[in-house]
Amino acid sequence: MPKLRVHMMSVSLDGYAAGPDQGLDAPLGVGGEALHTWAVATATFHRMQGRPGGSTGVDDELVRRGEEGIGATIMGRNMFGPVRGPWNGSDWTGWWGPEPPYHHPVLVLTHHARDPVRMAGGTTFTFVTDGIESALEQAFTAAGGRDVRLGGGAATVQQYLRAGLVDELHVAVVPLLLGGGERLFAHLEGAPPLECAEVLSSPVAAHIRMVRR
Amino acid sequence: MPKLRVHMMSVSLDGYAAGPDQGLDAPLGVGGEALHTWAVATATFHRMQGRPGGSTGVDDELVRRGEEGIGATIMGRNMFGPVRGPWNGSDWTGWWGPEPPYHHPVLVLTHHARDPVRMAGGTTFTFVTDGIESALEQAFTAAGGRDVRLGGGAATVQQYLRAGLVDELHVAVVPLLLGGGERLFAHLEGAPPLECAEVLSSPVAAHIRMVRR
Repeated sequence: MPKLRVHMMSVSLDGYAAGPDQGLDAPLGVGGEALHTWAVATATFHRMQGRPGGSTGVDDELVRRGEEGIGATIMGRNMFGPVRGPWNGSDWTGWWGPEPPYHHPVLVLTHHARDPVRMAGGTTFTFVTDGIESALEQAFTAAGGRDVRLGGGAATVQQYLRAGLVDELHVAVVPLLLGGGERLFAHLEGAPPLECAEVLSSPVAAHIRMVRR
Repeated sequence: MPKLRVHMMSVSLDGYAAGPDQGLDAPLGVGGEALHTWAVATATFHRMQGRPGGSTGVDDELVRRGEEGIGATIMGRNMFGPVRGPWNGSDWTGWWGPEPPYHHPVLVLTHHARDPVRMAGGTTFTFVTDGIESALEQAFTAAGGRDVRLGGGAATVQQYLRAGLVDELHVAVVPLLLGGGERLFAHLEGAPPLECAEVLSSPVAAHIRMVRR
């Protein structure tokens, strides 16, 4: 059966998935970009950006696995962009330029309706206003038998964890202290437990994969 | 120069150094004992308890290093025992039986004066009522040139981190979700940053060592 998978949720050692003071200038909060250095350095990430080189090994393996077998992505509106409230004809089409690296249907959770946006390279942003279960159902349909990836951010992952809908959760613990920001593991009262599938590490990240019991 | 070192601070993936509802029945909180399974399983821990066997490898190496070069230990009162308020002639001498595994001077932070307690095997519990700097000074003196280990619990480690007095912090991230309890990384506003020295992992724990910049 197709799965809902979270990959590469990078958190600082002190538990933050984004640094303090998130905004247009600092979408990942102050210091938050450093959470993703390990991933950006990998050969798989380089290849996705059409660049040569990049690191191989555990980090690269984890990035590669996160792309495998995925047919659709779900993300929260804050991950899609900094626009808040009604779209009001906004022409914002994500952080990723004209050809986003998804190449498949992307369901964006929002309280505000908007027509789908078709991008170059096969990515379509569809805006879902009737909740996380509906988004998941639409994503599974769109994925056509493949798995669905839950992209983030933290608040969106928390919603799906609380609802017990996450089959796999890969957290990359990054050895830095942000001192504040948005915690990944918060507001999870009543979330069904996950169990460990794997612990791996490179010199720049510790990878923990949890799966549904 | 002798250092203040924290070793084997085990935290769950969701950041808790102890589970919810700590008390005499569950000193580490509900589910909290599982935080230490990786350490208890090691050959070094077995040897400290006079038992044969135990795991070798990364986990064992980290436990062994934590014992190396230590001349004194500091701990918070809650780590020493469950007694609260004035001692009132309490005969509580710690969780560790007549011969605690320290074999050196142990400074216990408390608000309530008590005479030192001499245990078998070289451990002496001395109760310090005039603050963390005083305890550290006394510990360095008692250690006679060796390093001082800061034992815990979380609140005590936070105090020393805020004061910028920690030279080395080894956190073991354990792949389980406790869902609540006592966070290690909280109340750290203004704590000077630490930087990563090492990331290692075994199948049951990810080890991150941070050091003072």
